Amino acid sequence: MSLTSNENLMEKIVSLCKRRGFVYPSSEIYGGFANSWDFGPLGAELKLNIKNLWWKKFVHQRDNIFGIDASIIMNPKVWQASGHVSGFTDPLIDCKECKARIRADHLAEGYNIELSKIKNTKKLSEALKKANAKCPLCGSENLTEVRNFNLLFKTFVGPVEDESSTAYLRGETAQAMFVDFKNILNSFHPKLPFGIAQIGKAFRNEITPGNFIFRTREFEQMEIEYFIKKEEWEKHFEYWKDQMLSWIDEIGIKRENIYLHEIPAEERAHYSQRTIDIEYKFPFGQKELYGLAYRGDYDLKNHQEYSKEDLTYFDQETNSRFLPHVIEPTFGVERTILALLVEAYTEEKLEKETRVVLKFNKKIAPFKVAVLPLVRNKEEIVNKSKEVFNLIKENFVSMYDETGSIGKRYRRQDEIGTPFCITIDFETLNDNSVTIRDRDSMKQERVRIEELNDFLNEKLNN
Amino acid sequence: MSLTSNENLMEKIVSLCKRRGFVYPSSEIYGGFANSWDFGPLGAELKLNIKNLWWKKFVHQRDNIFGIDASIIMNPKVWQASGHVSGFTDPLIDCKECKARIRADHLAEGYNIELSKIKNTKKLSEALKKANAKCPLCGSENLTEVRNFNLLFKTFVGPVEDESSTAYLRGETAQAMFVDFKNILNSFHPKLPFGIAQIGKAFRNEITPGNFIFRTREFEQMEIEYFIKKEEWEKHFEYWKDQMLSWIDEIGIKRENIYLHEIPAEERAHYSQRTIDIEYKFPFGQKELYGLAYRGDYDLKNHQEYSKEDLTYFDQETNSRFLPHVIEPTFGVERTILALLVEAYTEEKLEKETRVVLKFNKKIAPFKVAVLPLVRNKEEIVNKSKEVFNLIKENFVSMYDETGSIGKRYRRQDEIGTPFCITIDFETLNDNSVTIRDRDSMKQERVRIEELNDFLNEKLNN
Repeated sequence: MSLTSNENLMEKIVSLCKRRGFVYPSSEIYGGFANSWDFGPLGAELKLNIKNLWWKKFVHQRDNIFGIDASIIMNPKVWQASGHVSGFTDPLIDCKECKARIRADHLAEGYNIELSKIKNTKKLSEALKKANAKCPLCGSENLTEVRNFNLLFKTFVGPVEDESSTAYLRGETAQAMFVDFKNILNSFHPKLPFGIAQIGKAFRNEITPGNFIFRTREFEQMEIEYFIKKEEWEKHFEYWKDQMLSWIDEIGIKRENIYLHEIPAEERAHYSQRTIDIEYKFPFGQKELYGLAYRGDYDLKNHQEYSKEDLTYFDQETNSRFLPHVIEPTFGVERTILALLVEAYTEEKLEKETRVVLKFNKKIAPFKVAVLPLVRNKEEIVNKSKEVFNLIKENFVSMYDETGSIGKRYRRQDEIGTPFCITIDFETLNDNSVTIRDRDSMKQERVRIEELNDFLNEKLNN
Repeated sequence: MSLTSNENLMEKIVSLCKRRGFVYPSSEIYGGFANSWDFGPLGAELKLNIKNLWWKKFVHQRDNIFGIDASIIMNPKVWQASGHVSGFTDPLIDCKECKARIRADHLAEGYNIELSKIKNTKKLSEALKKANAKCPLCGSENLTEVRNFNLLFKTFVGPVEDESSTAYLRGETAQAMFVDFKNILNSFHPKLPFGIAQIGKAFRNEITPGNFIFRTREFEQMEIEYFIKKEEWEKHFEYWKDQMLSWIDEIGIKRENIYLHEIPAEERAHYSQRTIDIEYKFPFGQKELYGLAYRGDYDLKNHQEYSKEDLTYFDQETNSRFLPHVIEPTFGVERTILALLVEAYTEEKLEKETRVVLKFNKKIAPFKVAVLPLVRNKEEIVNKSKEVFNLIKENFVSMYDETGSIGKRYRRQDEIGTPFCITIDFETLNDNSVTIRDRDSMKQERVRIEELNDFLNEKLNN
């Protein structure tokens, strides 16, 4: 069946995720909590696989990218220098009647107001009034002026709660790479071009998060700041665009579902000469999956100015000092997970039933192998099954399942995307062989137990 | 040389960590930030290795431990139910003269006041007055009463900053395992005993953090809640004590530096019948590294009461419902890193110099191999070196270094604990062999390039 025609696809995915242990509503026993989600055992593995693959590709396999793991709560001056304290805002408007609080830009879109032409909240208020904008909840036109609301989560460090102790949860991982730039120069003396990479949580106090794990207040970013010579930015931008697409291929997202959205000049940040949103066809629309931006020397310049520290790079070739420019590829972890779930979700009509399969790329699948004793009331079979589980678990993330008919257990593994099922049956006790079933083809073959690790290694790691 | 006799050991470690890129003061260009630290490229690898090893040992290689990855900001009711909002406090006292704010319990220790006998802040104030306690900064006796200060970091979710929007950064990872307990039961139907595990950040607004990365406001925990039948707690407690010690052996911490501190009844939480602190002989004293606690059914009972959700487990054997009891092994990531640095740091007197070596266990070492061209002005040698780097980097986290004399580069790799250095020299161009130098013995041997991966695999993965 065609996926895009499936109107209930998101519903089915959210339900499968909860039922099988990919993603749970956070704090569910307390009625949940405002678009927060917890990754269950399968989701946690999926997330780990994505993060480890990314780190391997972009940090381990290169000699010029330095991985870091910085604090979430940094010195608040970092966020003043970066412009987040003053400028990292969403425009909000209140309904005076029903007290609803709404994103003014989202409201404006409904009245065909061209946001790119509106310079400030005052103009936005005027445009909304002129359009007779109404509260989307109660229909009243009695709305407040638009005002900016900062997205940084605030907290207080130390025993006093006031201005002087205010600090912020980081709104993006990127700033740490600029702030630690000088430390990296001092420790490693790298030559341009080189990158600093990080995977970690970021926090944004979004007013209208939504679409499952697409937009949440707390999320993980995988990000690189790639430092270059100004005159080479176009070359490196192209290089990173290709690298991002090659990552997309590797994890198993089809190119036909990817769209490169060139951000037009009037919508780009003033310091960026080129920005691309890499969009994915989610069931709820084509939306940003990843981003690639040329940021010039905007960030290093700001931090140099605010910190009064010299952040220039000394170029031995030209015997000169300058601030490197930056290409920034950003990957959202949760959005990657969601896109992979959408890609993988398949319903196949078999003779008597419909089979749900998550056709994950093998590198991404949370569990690689399931070990299934044919019956659980025969001790020799159970013992042999545990022996097999112990034999392979050192090399492959495996699951042991003995409850229900073998057919049901195959379906259960299909539904969570396990590439291989190993069944231990009565024959196994005679010939020391097991049946291996392939998730996608459903074909089965016999393999000798002593050859299992080699067999799986070839199928899973090549 | 003996390490414990080394008074400057901490100083040396902090300095090496900063210089070589293990740990940087966070936001250093802004003068740092109150005991926050960033992990540089080497520290980030060390941390990843520790976390991945732990997850492999305690989650992947077992069929009854379920890993999760929950939100940092949970429903605030979670922290009311757990007792953290009311009881997760440190006692503070202010000096009225110099305005210093100090931990009252630390002050009391200096006057030999027995804290275990003091029941509340009022009694502590009285005891301090009776002892004529003085401000440790200015010497004044003009101190305020003792009052409790909550360690949870507060923030506000949504656009309004008030009581109703107050939420907390999690003060421990543990609560997520209790809150998601029912989700795990529903998805996986596990039988007792089984565990839920998590690795993640926790936040505590400590007034006096310190000792480098030993006590910081933001840190990572690796934690298991192991659910059991009440009557079996002693058996499982012993089992987990052994498991924790086996982990300590595996990562290369010597048993002689470990001390099991049985917490006496009067210092234990009221619900715990046994708690052990696993202490390590840090240069600044013998301090808690890990903890193991029997928590009874305290947490599930609280959450059941507050959430009104049934959190009981149905036991098929006895056909009865009950709240499982819990054994909780907790491992601090940053403390593990610090203990490993202390363990590994070695100064060896050679003929003409002193060699500093971090003798990390090979599984833990940030980089496994360094690839070193003997000279960098000979193109064939540089090309061959890059060929070797590309050959092994898929399998082993490797570094490429071409600057400085070969002797200097060996010392540089010793200092960051790289187990093997591969040198590509003029002979290599004739015989396609390289020199491999062992970090600890400094012995060198020739290995053919086509055998490199096998050679390293045997040395590093066995």
